[in-house]
Amino acid sequence: MPDDPLKSWSDGFTKSAILNFVSRVTREGTPDFVPPPKRIAAFDNDGTLWPEQPTYIQFIFAFDRVKALVPEHREWRTRQPFQAVLEGNMKALVTLGEKALREIITATHSGMTTDQFNAIVADWLANTRDRRFKRFYTELVYQPMLELLAYLRTNGFKTFIVSGAGQDFIRVFADKTYCVPPEQVVGSNTVTELQVHNSSPVLLKMPSVEPVEEGPGKPVAINRFIGQRPIFAFGNSDGDKEMLEWTAAGVGLRFMGIVHHTDADREWAYDRKSDVGRLDKVLDEANAQGWTIVDMKSDWNLVFPTEER
Amino acid sequence: MPDDPLKSWSDGFTKSAILNFVSRVTREGTPDFVPPPKRIAAFDNDGTLWPEQPTYIQFIFAFDRVKALVPEHREWRTRQPFQAVLEGNMKALVTLGEKALREIITATHSGMTTDQFNAIVADWLANTRDRRFKRFYTELVYQPMLELLAYLRTNGFKTFIVSGAGQDFIRVFADKTYCVPPEQVVGSNTVTELQVHNSSPVLLKMPSVEPVEEGPGKPVAINRFIGQRPIFAFGNSDGDKEMLEWTAAGVGLRFMGIVHHTDADREWAYDRKSDVGRLDKVLDEANAQGWTIVDMKSDWNLVFPTEER
Repeated sequence: MPDDPLKSWSDGFTKSAILNFVSRVTREGTPDFVPPPKRIAAFDNDGTLWPEQPTYIQFIFAFDRVKALVPEHREWRTRQPFQAVLEGNMKALVTLGEKALREIITATHSGMTTDQFNAIVADWLANTRDRRFKRFYTELVYQPMLELLAYLRTNGFKTFIVSGAGQDFIRVFADKTYCVPPEQVVGSNTVTELQVHNSSPVLLKMPSVEPVEEGPGKPVAINRFIGQRPIFAFGNSDGDKEMLEWTAAGVGLRFMGIVHHTDADREWAYDRKSDVGRLDKVLDEANAQGWTIVDMKSDWNLVFPTEER
Repeated sequence: MPDDPLKSWSDGFTKSAILNFVSRVTREGTPDFVPPPKRIAAFDNDGTLWPEQPTYIQFIFAFDRVKALVPEHREWRTRQPFQAVLEGNMKALVTLGEKALREIITATHSGMTTDQFNAIVADWLANTRDRRFKRFYTELVYQPMLELLAYLRTNGFKTFIVSGAGQDFIRVFADKTYCVPPEQVVGSNTVTELQVHNSSPVLLKMPSVEPVEEGPGKPVAINRFIGQRPIFAFGNSDGDKEMLEWTAAGVGLRFMGIVHHTDADREWAYDRKSDVGRLDKVLDEANAQGWTIVDMKSDWNLVFPTEER
């Protein structure tokens, strides 16, 4: 099929479930019809639209920033958690825990204007390749999900990203990479303060974060930022459980999708025991509720965009 | 002109300034051209899209809620600031100050689910008329601004509301009244908490507010919620100063508009000395910077939608 909108999806149950859902909610005059303004689709980012192994890409960015900023912060050489980052001691970092990671994010995501931060991220994305795949991260997005996003938009959906990660970080590339504009990216936020520099207003990023919490924080953020309940949601981990349940609990036809990472050769294979992106409770719930589980290995005939793209 | 998109605007400098701006930023291949995804327009709500005199409409709603809830809160009869509301003692309320108003908002905007709150607001809007104009509030919106919103959208703009008032309150009517969908309404927010009622997830509104502060809080909220700098902004008071400055400070052609309430017969007349919606510093700045000031009396040939609408 040359005009197949989901050509990187193998024929089968999963692809049919997507096509069938979209066909039903867009057919005017039928009971399942949903008018376009209510066609809200919410996607997790890490592990759903691009990889999250061996760790979150935003962490790799933050670690690289620690290395870049050490001349201005020589004390970091002997201060945790920065020392662990500089020594590449990931084991020590894991031991230091989530608070240490938050400290690294805060230190590397504040102290500059929003414009300066965006330029730093854009520069990093343009010059950093994933170690295993040797690709730029913006080329390490899932081709089937790009097709799905486009297919939904073609059918009148508004596609949103709802992530626990930094919204400013994602917004730098989401527009070009996913065709998701900044105002449709919801995530954790570095608090900003309006200041005047050279008689021009700027927003300075402060060392304080307004988080979108994984789990229950996702429906809360959806209400705050989107104000409508999605009819379509896609995630890949237990952190997406409440977003999927919130979507499922609405009235009318709904689609709940899960990316199950089953392909160690082409991407990664992990689920119930993974530290990053654990998929355990949600896998059981998806099975029990009949949600759509993408088996990456069999459902995707292509994982990343081809070179020719 | 039967197909005039701004037919409630009188011919003159103000109307020409709007038409000229939109024509310039939408003409492809010219230096002022702005591609559609960057055509972001931000509007204040109270005093810009609907009246704010003698007080904010959301306060009238909150006062009515205090009266409705008094059987469940008999202690309010003798407790300020509720007693002042119940006795209609606006002078006492003003004396009690902003903290008292926040207490009233909190008490009347929490303790129910988001769905329940939305139903309460919708019911109130459907049954409450403005005392002076005898109209429902959703019919007390400015017809010229409805035309402006529609005209901008026809020209590829995304129209946002950026208000210090409650976003949940505005979202109830913004879609139908302004054709601004919930996800494009930014405002102060009652914190919600995900809970499970009858095995279904609900968002409960808590007695705590995440404010969009007037003034500097508006650019901060624009960055957080929209993530792009507007090229077009409209306000009417000193609380919109920083939003207009933030808009003006961007690169390229910009439009900054102010509604000046000059028409005591058809609406209200107030500016530099008003308690609600004071327009003082911004009036000077608009004059100095050449921003567009709408003189309601002369620029609008119609203020509210006609009955036939």
